[in-house]
Amino acid sequence: MESQQLQSVAVIGLGSMGMGAAKSCIRAGLDTYGVDLSTDALKELEQAGAKGISHNCADFANVLDAVLLLVVNARQAKAVLFDNQLAAQLKPGTAVMVSATISAEDAKSIEAGLKEHQLLMLDAPVSGGAAKANVGEMTIMASGSQEAFAKLKPVLDATAGKVYNIGTEIGMGATVKIIHQLLAGVHIAAGAEAMALAARANIPLDLMYDVVTNAAGNSWMFENRMKHVVDGDYTPTSMVDIFVKDLNLVSDTAKVLKFPLPLASTALNMFTSASNAGFGQEDDSAVIKIFDGIELPKKEQ
Amino acid sequence: MESQQLQSVAVIGLGSMGMGAAKSCIRAGLDTYGVDLSTDALKELEQAGAKGISHNCADFANVLDAVLLLVVNARQAKAVLFDNQLAAQLKPGTAVMVSATISAEDAKSIEAGLKEHQLLMLDAPVSGGAAKANVGEMTIMASGSQEAFAKLKPVLDATAGKVYNIGTEIGMGATVKIIHQLLAGVHIAAGAEAMALAARANIPLDLMYDVVTNAAGNSWMFENRMKHVVDGDYTPTSMVDIFVKDLNLVSDTAKVLKFPLPLASTALNMFTSASNAGFGQEDDSAVIKIFDGIELPKKEQ
Repeated sequence: MESQQLQSVAVIGLGSMGMGAAKSCIRAGLDTYGVDLSTDALKELEQAGAKGISHNCADFANVLDAVLLLVVNARQAKAVLFDNQLAAQLKPGTAVMVSATISAEDAKSIEAGLKEHQLLMLDAPVSGGAAKANVGEMTIMASGSQEAFAKLKPVLDATAGKVYNIGTEIGMGATVKIIHQLLAGVHIAAGAEAMALAARANIPLDLMYDVVTNAAGNSWMFENRMKHVVDGDYTPTSMVDIFVKDLNLVSDTAKVLKFPLPLASTALNMFTSASNAGFGQEDDSAVIKIFDGIELPKKEQ
Repeated sequence: MESQQLQSVAVIGLGSMGMGAAKSCIRAGLDTYGVDLSTDALKELEQAGAKGISHNCADFANVLDAVLLLVVNARQAKAVLFDNQLAAQLKPGTAVMVSATISAEDAKSIEAGLKEHQLLMLDAPVSGGAAKANVGEMTIMASGSQEAFAKLKPVLDATAGKVYNIGTEIGMGATVKIIHQLLAGVHIAAGAEAMALAARANIPLDLMYDVVTNAAGNSWMFENRMKHVVDGDYTPTSMVDIFVKDLNLVSDTAKVLKFPLPLASTALNMFTSASNAGFGQEDDSAVIKIFDGIELPKKEQ
């Protein structure tokens, strides 16, 4: 069965990833609608050529072929779809791409709610940061029915550099993203631990950074985040509290699967300590501030 | 003071790194001597153009301007220099480059022993693997006197792609290498933990590998070592027991500096468990075998 070509999509959640994804949809020629609580974000998307903008998706729910949910967590996703009744307002057959980082359990419970309204779902977390989202090159790890993949192909083409098809079972996309976050979180915490030890040993941190980033001890996160420590600049690109959330999702996943995670549970403790010490809203590299007895570089004025 | 140009060097320890370094010295036009317990290794270096080979460095100690020690640990380095009395046989002013991964304490004690014989020392651990050593592109993180750096410049030029000058204090090179190994060890253990969780969640490991290596959760070690897990091939490139040794060096360093290392201590426990379970001589990625209740890929026959 050839599904009708998707023409219109609403992007809900115009944060750093959602704004980039929405603009990519506009560039790809899709009728693109934007929904956010922020009036500034709505105006920005309107100027970029949005077909419609609103604080409330109900204003154009009946013309949509697809919805791309780029909200922060499962609670927000469920609030939009069910508490605010968007699921009831969409036409049957509309495809909902859920791209928040959520648990497999939450993905399955959202799927059940969408099914009651004959809506398709793609469990499709994303990675790559604002820069990749802006140029339509996000990495998407997705699971769902062939029908959902087919219907959302124009949106995937517009927003992704790479789409991984994890299978048909809703929850697999969420799980792959969570395992990815396990690595990302442990790598930031390990980078902080290593740089803290270097500071304790009176190794200049810029030199330590230079050695590691040119050797086998490097990681994507070390290279990206420990630069902030070297510069003494904890302006958040992504916050400590995001990894408290994501490593708790890792922990929840381990509990459901009955599986021990010695490193991830340790990293969760480190981020949780950093948040309780008052650094939750700082850049996630501020997890290094849990270590006492060292002097870290200060930001140049 | 212009020091006399170094002409001859003995490389002691012709393992994967030492053989590459020795061949690089030959290519650079240095009179190169090779010392190893393995007759095969000596023959290989002789055919590559060595000026001399022997099981015992005493055979040519009196003609050497420099020694490059690429043995496995501090015990071996001390055995060669002091138990076997090489230090007493070298000409005063000869430069000894100690490139084993050892503690700062051991580096300092070796320095003290060499000083008694008026020998120069460079505390110069290396990184990069056999491939980089073979093409004279090792990464060297070195500390020592300006005189030692100057004297060894021809050897450094011949063997290194990058030389980091960590300072004049012996022990700083060792410490930088140990902190690097903290990251390398934690990254392998974290990769194993993530892949084990993926196996538990029935995510195909080749797909998980593909996602991570194309996203922000990647590390040099994940990309290099988790391929072995995907292939089910634990033929050692570097063994589990090497990280038991190196993470114990990390732990010793933390003890001396009185510093907590939550992730490194956890990773040490994981490698130690893997070794006790019988996997010590397998590839270090075999640390994944400490996780029960999962099925891992088998090597294709």
